[in-house]
Amino acid sequence: MNLADMSWTTVKEAVCKDPNPRIIIPVGSVEQHGPHLPLSTDTIIAEHIATRVASQVPCILFPTLSISYSLEHADFPGTVSFTLQTFSSIIAEIADNLLNSGFKTLIVINGHGGNRAILDSSITSIKHAHPDLELYSFTILDIARKRFREIRKSTRTMIGHADELETSMMLAILPGVVQMSKAVTEEPTFPPSISLESEDLVNVTYGWKTKDVTKSGVIGNPNFATPETGRLLLDYVVQTISSIIGT
Amino acid sequence: MNLADMSWTTVKEAVCKDPNPRIIIPVGSVEQHGPHLPLSTDTIIAEHIATRVASQVPCILFPTLSISYSLEHADFPGTVSFTLQTFSSIIAEIADNLLNSGFKTLIVINGHGGNRAILDSSITSIKHAHPDLELYSFTILDIARKRFREIRKSTRTMIGHADELETSMMLAILPGVVQMSKAVTEEPTFPPSISLESEDLVNVTYGWKTKDVTKSGVIGNPNFATPETGRLLLDYVVQTISSIIGT
Amino acid sequence: MNLADMSWTTVKEAVCKDPNPRIIIPVGSVEQHGPHLPLSTDTIIAEHIATRVASQVPCILFPTLSISYSLEHADFPGTVSFTLQTFSSIIAEIADNLLNSGFKTLIVINGHGGNRAILDSSITSIKHAHPDLELYSFTILDIARKRFREIRKSTRTMIGHADELETSMMLAILPGVVQMSKAVTEEPTFPPSISLESEDLVNVTYGWKTKDVTKSGVIGNPNFATPETGRLLLDYVVQTISSIIGT
Amino acid sequence: MNLADMSWTTVKEAVCKDPNPRIIIPVGSVEQHGPHLPLSTDTIIAEHIATRVASQVPCILFPTLSISYSLEHADFPGTVSFTLQTFSSIIAEIADNLLNSGFKTLIVINGHGGNRAILDSSITSIKHAHPDLELYSFTILDIARKRFREIRKSTRTMIGHADELETSMMLAILPGVVQMSKAVTEEPTFPPSISLESEDLVNVTYGWKTKDVTKSGVIGNPNFATPETGRLLLDYVVQTISSIIGT
Amino acid sequence: MNLADMSWTTVKEAVCKDPNPRIIIPVGSVEQHGPHLPLSTDTIIAEHIATRVASQVPCILFPTLSISYSLEHADFPGTVSFTLQTFSSIIAEIADNLLNSGFKTLIVINGHGGNRAILDSSITSIKHAHPDLELYSFTILDIARKRFREIRKSTRTMIGHADELETSMMLAILPGVVQMSKAVTEEPTFPPSISLESEDLVNVTYGWKTKDVTKSGVIGNPNFATPETGRLLLDYVVQTISSIIGT
Amino acid sequence: MNLADMSWTTVKEAVCKDPNPRIIIPVGSVEQHGPHLPLSTDTIIAEHIATRVASQVPCILFPTLSISYSLEHADFPGTVSFTLQTFSSIIAEIADNLLNSGFKTLIVINGHGGNRAILDSSITSIKHAHPDLELYSFTILDIARKRFREIRKSTRTMIGHADELETSMMLAILPGVVQMSKAVTEEPTFPPSISLESEDLVNVTYGWKTKDVTKSGVIGNPNFATPETGRLLLDYVVQTISSIIGT
Repeated sequence: MNLADMSWTTVKEAVCKDPNPRIIIPVGSVEQHGPHLPLSTDTIIAEHIATRVASQVPCILFPTLSISYSLEHADFPGTVSFTLQTFSSIIAEIADNLLNSGFKTLIVINGHGGNRAILDSSITSIKHAHPDLELYSFTILDIARKRFREIRKSTRTMIGHADELETSMMLAILPGVVQMSKAVTEEPTFPPSISLESEDLVNVTYGWKTKDVTKSGVIGNPNFATPETGRLLLDYVVQTISSIIGT
Repeated sequence: MNLADMSWTTVKEAVCKDPNPRIIIPVGSVEQHGPHLPLSTDTIIAEHIATRVASQVPCILFPTLSISYSLEHADFPGTVSFTLQTFSSIIAEIADNLLNSGFKTLIVINGHGGNRAILDSSITSIKHAHPDLELYSFTILDIARKRFREIRKSTRTMIGHADELETSMMLAILPGVVQMSKAVTEEPTFPPSISLESEDLVNVTYGWKTKDVTKSGVIGNPNFATPETGRLLLDYVVQTISSIIGT
Repeated sequence: MNLADMSWTTVKEAVCKDPNPRIIIPVGSVEQHGPHLPLSTDTIIAEHIATRVASQVPCILFPTLSISYSLEHADFPGTVSFTLQTFSSIIAEIADNLLNSGFKTLIVINGHGGNRAILDSSITSIKHAHPDLELYSFTILDIARKRFREIRKSTRTMIGHADELETSMMLAILPGVVQMSKAVTEEPTFPPSISLESEDLVNVTYGWKTKDVTKSGVIGNPNFATPETGRLLLDYVVQTISSIIGT
Repeated sequence: MNLADMSWTTVKEAVCKDPNPRIIIPVGSVEQHGPHLPLSTDTIIAEHIATRVASQVPCILFPTLSISYSLEHADFPGTVSFTLQTFSSIIAEIADNLLNSGFKTLIVINGHGGNRAILDSSITSIKHAHPDLELYSFTILDIARKRFREIRKSTRTMIGHADELETSMMLAILPGVVQMSKAVTEEPTFPPSISLESEDLVNVTYGWKTKDVTKSGVIGNPNFATPETGRLLLDYVVQTISSIIGT
Repeated sequence: MNLADMSWTTVKEAVCKDPNPRIIIPVGSVEQHGPHLPLSTDTIIAEHIATRVASQVPCILFPTLSISYSLEHADFPGTVSFTLQTFSSIIAEIADNLLNSGFKTLIVINGHGGNRAILDSSITSIKHAHPDLELYSFTILDIARKRFREIRKSTRTMIGHADELETSMMLAILPGVVQMSKAVTEEPTFPPSISLESEDLVNVTYGWKTKDVTKSGVIGNPNFATPETGRLLLDYVVQTISSIIGT
Repeated sequence: MNLADMSWTTVKEAVCKDPNPRIIIPVGSVEQHGPHLPLSTDTIIAEHIATRVASQVPCILFPTLSISYSLEHADFPGTVSFTLQTFSSIIAEIADNLLNSGFKTLIVINGHGGNRAILDSSITSIKHAHPDLELYSFTILDIARKRFREIRKSTRTMIGHADELETSMMLAILPGVVQMSKAVTEEPTFPPSISLESEDLVNVTYGWKTKDVTKSGVIGNPNFATPETGRLLLDYVVQTISSIIGT
């Protein structure tokens, strides 16, 4: 059930009769995803996952936050990003309002990898301000990556942007918006001492701008993408989230 | 054309070949609209108008801002509002980004009357910061009201919320989400010296909270609403905006 | 009675014995008003109106806020304007303090048209923070304009700045500071599709800087100004405000 | 010459023809000054001093900031104080604007002792942001105190508020607003180890609220005040400031 | 070489003669670490690692930030934490200053796991503001955990606080401050669906406060700690960081 | 006893058994002190004084704030300064946390003269927010100056930076870090009307940047410095602070 479609009286009833009213907040982005994917790629994926989770688990669905924290892509036309201060205020104020409306559990489902850090640190603040609120944040890419390693065709696990992983998901959800004929592959070199394979990326956060490491905005090989890979990844993510937040 | 559907390369091309690239930013709200209308009423109306304007006038369409400045309704469950500081930062930062992307004209189409003041004062700031940016802000209700006075069935021109005017528009756009059986009429009394007829409301801004003046959240009489009234109002608003921003 | 002239003990007594202690906050500006009017034009007009209202209605008078939100005039030497964030904090903090002092009603009388939006949106915030506070905001020009249309000599109702309307008021209040010999007339063209007549300005907010539309800072024809026009306008504004806030 | 009385063209001329255009910013307060002095005591004194300095030294006079940073008096009705963040933004933004108008030297003449610290730290920021701006800040009480020690009747040099010093100045400037019949004397004890004599107050800043140390809001003995003392102090302050800023 | 020990002339020389002057910023915390470890545990570990890295790799060492972002521990006396807004400003302003001083690479070595998210999101902002600055952030616990899994005695890989991992490091660095007799073991249960084993913690961020899941502040089993384990972990972390930032 | 060395349980016990638990917060800086003194000069002096005071008076010692408000020195490499807004938030948030931990008295011991104003104005805010908290702030240089005037070799009492006074203290505390061979003397001229002798500096705050008045960063004559002078000054400061805060 979408919050947007409900009246205030319906929200009130729903919140009153449920001992643990939960709400899912999908977070997308307006951010370059190479020449072959739309700026709303993260929004489309986050809404797809959130809608499926909400159909399995009794939750209300909040309107997707379509703009988030994408400063690393700011050099590419069409990208729109809030500052750290504004985006963290956005998250905190939404939580304040939803708590006032009677919700007891907030579940963020985030489609943009670059948002994870700011969402995580915001959750610490919100939990501090509202100790009784239950808070979950899921970043789709971080969940998908485990399954991706098992099924990918790409020869390396990249940090990845508009790559086999994201493109596959998009081919599975909304193939009409993917322009595979424009898909290019870029495998940027980071400082030679940083492997883009996952272990180093656990060990270090390196400041980078997409423009400095790619020309197209793509990091990875979208040409390996298939709808089948996308479906396997999406199913895995939906299953993982649903199983953690329970029923 | 929706910005969200474009890739960054398409945005770049569109912006480069157009001497005056324009973008429309629809602004909705998540805000109570009585028991018979959804929380997203303003969003639905703003997107409807913006889409029609963008089909008549060469403009790109930005993703709708679905949460805005609705503190007066904050006592009703489901309402979500940013603070003044955060919402004005949101507008300012979006403008910064769109300017960086190459847009030269920003056109806000706002579905929530309570946003007009904060949008107007934000525009002053943005124009000061970016003198070359051309900026328009339209508030749908303020435009519709003139036509409404000619065709309404309601016996008084109220400040209005979820009333004949808004309900008619919703019946014209998306009748399936309007629950007329739940529509109630409330005609609140403001301090006796303030007439809710328009002249006094030009003369004074009076601080009020919906909860203090209504029980249902409705200000006005939605039972007079008809799809015909809605269509006339929507046509008038689309026509007015298109004619001001030109072609 | 001016708050500034009272001691804290007198304020305490006044507030205690009055079931609804009210305070008027005049808001002026330090802002260009063409070559013939002083920078404090809005301050002089706001103080004049506020003093007369306070003599008719039992209210305490707060010291005039002499600097406000005038970014559209910032290119003209002598103009001083706060940012949106600072001016809205100023208003909110004054309200907090006056509430703590025991005042129950705040009445803003605003001399600068460009302040209306930021005052209106601030009032929404203050009412949200302090639901028991009664709040009114009057913008002198918006009230005067109705009467002005009936008596003006100018051939068009302009958005107006340092024009027949403002100059007439100044001639009525403090003729010694008006230098009519320097008064120039400018009737700027806005984007051709925007009529400066009132209906379009209800329909759209257009971002503009005075410097881009005038050379002198004047928008309108101050040479039509007379003290008689000024007196009629001032009387009308005082009467309108007094009648709305009651006795 | 008051900036408020000038038109923008006059300001432009004045600033252009003067190699070092200077502007004086008087800072007052809306703050309790015991039962016998008005809330605007600091404003009256600051304006008096500033006006006399501006008559001796070629300077333009800015409108007095009538509200400042008076949190220590916030428990007394009528006191109005900005927060630290807002008042420092006010100062910084005024400086930005005056620099843009062409002024090269800013001279703050401050009537409220409690403002000195926030003004001093703001000046460090402003100088950092605008290295070419020349900045002076004078706090009237700090200057007057030296002369006061030579001529006072009070038996101790107190931290002082609404005391012999301030009351004398007010008797000299505007005796009509001083209600000597209501003047009470309070000589609060601070923590026993802190002498209110000057040396300890150089050595330590102790956090205090007026309400915790006095009942009347007075710290000191206003009954010793005379217009003669006031005149001597005022002359001394005017002379000191004029001599430091030169001619 | 510690920045604190250098004069400005030495800094200038060092920065000028080095084509890539690098600076390490250790980040600690003032935060509960159970009854057996000091509040400065993270500071001690971060300084130890940073000092050893700086002895292997030509870098200057910045003074340790001893207070950071520890809101999850705020219920335990002695914990001191900045808000999200303040701590992110601290990081951003230090970066601005170090860039002005001529540094080209900033390397954060962070001792508090809870800081990783806010540091990561800050780095995105700083890189956006200063594209030429090279930025690395290392969180010691995240690096140590991999090695820890190979050598730990604890029967589960917990999220961990003041546990075998941290206590071992402290026994290796500064055994005199560890009070093993006070070490207690707590193995909190999180919502049953969240395994504290690493995979789930990659998949979800769950909002928690230490006080809600433990009584002592310990999460894990510090009684398994040994100096040998600590040395192996510290060596591994120093080696990993040094190898990534190179020589 | 250092807070950093305590566990949370020890803090809890200490705070519970003491009717007036006090904590000393030393404030240093990272700021140029000429070619002969380290950037941490203020930190070293503040920690020395604070440690000695804490050994005489029962107090807990907070970790030194090693970065503060040093914008006037920002042109010299190695200087790191927070903005006014950030540093005042730092102080306010630390106070909030220490109050939550149970401390009732906060004692700031500040080693950088330029911090006094921002600390003083912050204390007003903190006292306003937390009326029951007892707050002291000591600025070492301001205390030392009185004794310095009696024993100095320098021929004038300058505003002073890295001068005989500070260099003497450093020779007494940590002679190994003082490079007397690099000590240079600069006696800058301020605007001719401002004597750097103390009376004028009481009378006026003048905005200055070190770079504009010196080449070396030194204001004064460090070559007169001796460890004996340093010891006398340090003893005097420790004695003065201890006697004010009592036992």
